[in-house]
Amino acid sequence: MFDNKENTDLEKIGEFGLIDLLSKSIELTESSTVKGIGDDAAVMNYGDNQTLISTDLLLEGVHFDLRYVPLKHLGYKAVQVNLSDIYAMNGIASQITFSIGLSSKFPLEAVEEIYAGAILACKKFNVDLVGGDTSASKQGLIISVTSIGYVNDLDITYRDGAQEGDLICVSGDLGGAYVGLQLLEREKQIFLENPNIQPDLEGKDYIIERQLKPEARKDIIHLFKDIGIKPSAMIDVSDGLASEVLHICKQSKKGCKLYEDKIPIDQMTFDTAREFGLDPTICALSGGEDYELLFTVKQADYDKIKGDVDISIIGYITEENAGCNLISKAGNMHPIKAQGWNAFS
Amino acid sequence: MFDNKENTDLEKIGEFGLIDLLSKSIELTESSTVKGIGDDAAVMNYGDNQTLISTDLLLEGVHFDLRYVPLKHLGYKAVQVNLSDIYAMNGIASQITFSIGLSSKFPLEAVEEIYAGAILACKKFNVDLVGGDTSASKQGLIISVTSIGYVNDLDITYRDGAQEGDLICVSGDLGGAYVGLQLLEREKQIFLENPNIQPDLEGKDYIIERQLKPEARKDIIHLFKDIGIKPSAMIDVSDGLASEVLHICKQSKKGCKLYEDKIPIDQMTFDTAREFGLDPTICALSGGEDYELLFTVKQADYDKIKGDVDISIIGYITEENAGCNLISKAGNMHPIKAQGWNAFS
Repeated sequence: MFDNKENTDLEKIGEFGLIDLLSKSIELTESSTVKGIGDDAAVMNYGDNQTLISTDLLLEGVHFDLRYVPLKHLGYKAVQVNLSDIYAMNGIASQITFSIGLSSKFPLEAVEEIYAGAILACKKFNVDLVGGDTSASKQGLIISVTSIGYVNDLDITYRDGAQEGDLICVSGDLGGAYVGLQLLEREKQIFLENPNIQPDLEGKDYIIERQLKPEARKDIIHLFKDIGIKPSAMIDVSDGLASEVLHICKQSKKGCKLYEDKIPIDQMTFDTAREFGLDPTICALSGGEDYELLFTVKQADYDKIKGDVDISIIGYITEENAGCNLISKAGNMHPIKAQGWNAFS
Repeated sequence: MFDNKENTDLEKIGEFGLIDLLSKSIELTESSTVKGIGDDAAVMNYGDNQTLISTDLLLEGVHFDLRYVPLKHLGYKAVQVNLSDIYAMNGIASQITFSIGLSSKFPLEAVEEIYAGAILACKKFNVDLVGGDTSASKQGLIISVTSIGYVNDLDITYRDGAQEGDLICVSGDLGGAYVGLQLLEREKQIFLENPNIQPDLEGKDYIIERQLKPEARKDIIHLFKDIGIKPSAMIDVSDGLASEVLHICKQSKKGCKLYEDKIPIDQMTFDTAREFGLDPTICALSGGEDYELLFTVKQADYDKIKGDVDISIIGYITEENAGCNLISKAGNMHPIKAQGWNAFS
């Protein structure tokens, strides 16, 4: 069916390359469309507020491994990951659709577990599950979530609004989800080699939860309202700090300086990364799946956020030509690269 | 992971059973949610208009067979199928998100073909493609489409509004997509047995197109506006006439009488069904994938629709206790059953 002589390997262009390429062929003509592809969520104008929409596809063997992910956690995480994109627009999520494809090897109770997790996440975040599609699958478990939210005109926050001098901030801590995954992978290998050995996850609850049961940061959106801040740019940390800060800089046409010693890393994340021979900073920069919010604010807002223990100021925005750099603990400057995750390799 | 003693086979409860069961655990609490699961699309109130959302998951080997579905047609059909749900609410589709999961065996050009079909459908129907997700897949090709639309309060049409005495109408003709599929399946088998034999689809363009390239009936929604009709109930024909008319009757708490000789079946559909030893009426009742609109109107509206060659009046709504029946060409009465499609068998 494919003409071989003109074919291009997907591995070569990667996920972002593919998105860029496909985006070029898309024209927007509907008057209610405010923003299409290129941010955490699309924006539509249907009335007083802007309507937001975001969608994710989660595939067995790619995004999750049923050998260690409990089904209820999977449903919960699938919703969280998607709501996170709405919050990253400074919006409030209001509805989701939740679709699953699954083979008949799954009993009804398995489906109910997945939905129970999804519904738990919805309840916790005051979101309605309003639709979806269920389908037989010959191809393992597939989950597709779309969320809808709203935000008023003045509050909406894109990736492209960062200004020179703005402070770069991040909520919570980073790298935990990635280190938690390493731990789960190690225990899976041990179990595969000897099923009699019980998994040794004792005392590692925090990083395991960061991987299996992330919490989208709706609380930060409420905090912004309470303390009177509107970020100049924002994105959620799904692919890793490096990838996300580069998105903000590229779209804002700016550069940045990040300080390694300011990057918030939990002690358990740090220690466990070391156990695995991993650099904790690299885990934060390239690990991903933390679903924290990375955002920029005007320097004048410094006093409003400096006292919040849940927000770290990790650097500042520079002019574009200065590039995107990390200042190491030793004081050396390194260009930031998106190791990223090439979905097709 | 599953506790075997309490497990229930998905095959036993079927897709609709599963949806019913899952729906029971879902509460709606958001003030902007007007209607959740249970119609063609969910309804949300964000301003002057009602916002509609619908989503579909299409899986290789279940919903399509890449051995005879051209990729561009696949992208086109995936969009049409989803827009059809918005039109079935008497709404106008305005945006879609389009997600694909695919393995790296697909070259970039294949992805571009799929998107080209999706974008063509969007252009033709004045819909913006505003987002999506692309992912690696170990599980064949996966497409997930979500569409957003709008409709004003007075025009919105649910499945549950049919009244006793209302006329049951359907757009276009039925059964063609199913008979087209039989033809493609036959040619595939012949090709698998002897790759030197060219497919014999000569003169069968119409039913092949009904299967590979269906057109959602936006034109009918405009027609309603032009002639001043608001249907009392409406649904799109995705699973087959029998299944859809039962949805309207069940949700409206009514019965119906359909007349076999009034069901619109194209001559080519009829003749080809006969070639395959199939009853053309059964193809219309249980075949599905026609993406026509099935709707009910007040008898007083008869004069407004009687002259439209693209609309057939096929029966009328009765009281609930009379049941749902088909009057055969011979004058016999048969209860209508949803043969349906059990997604898990």
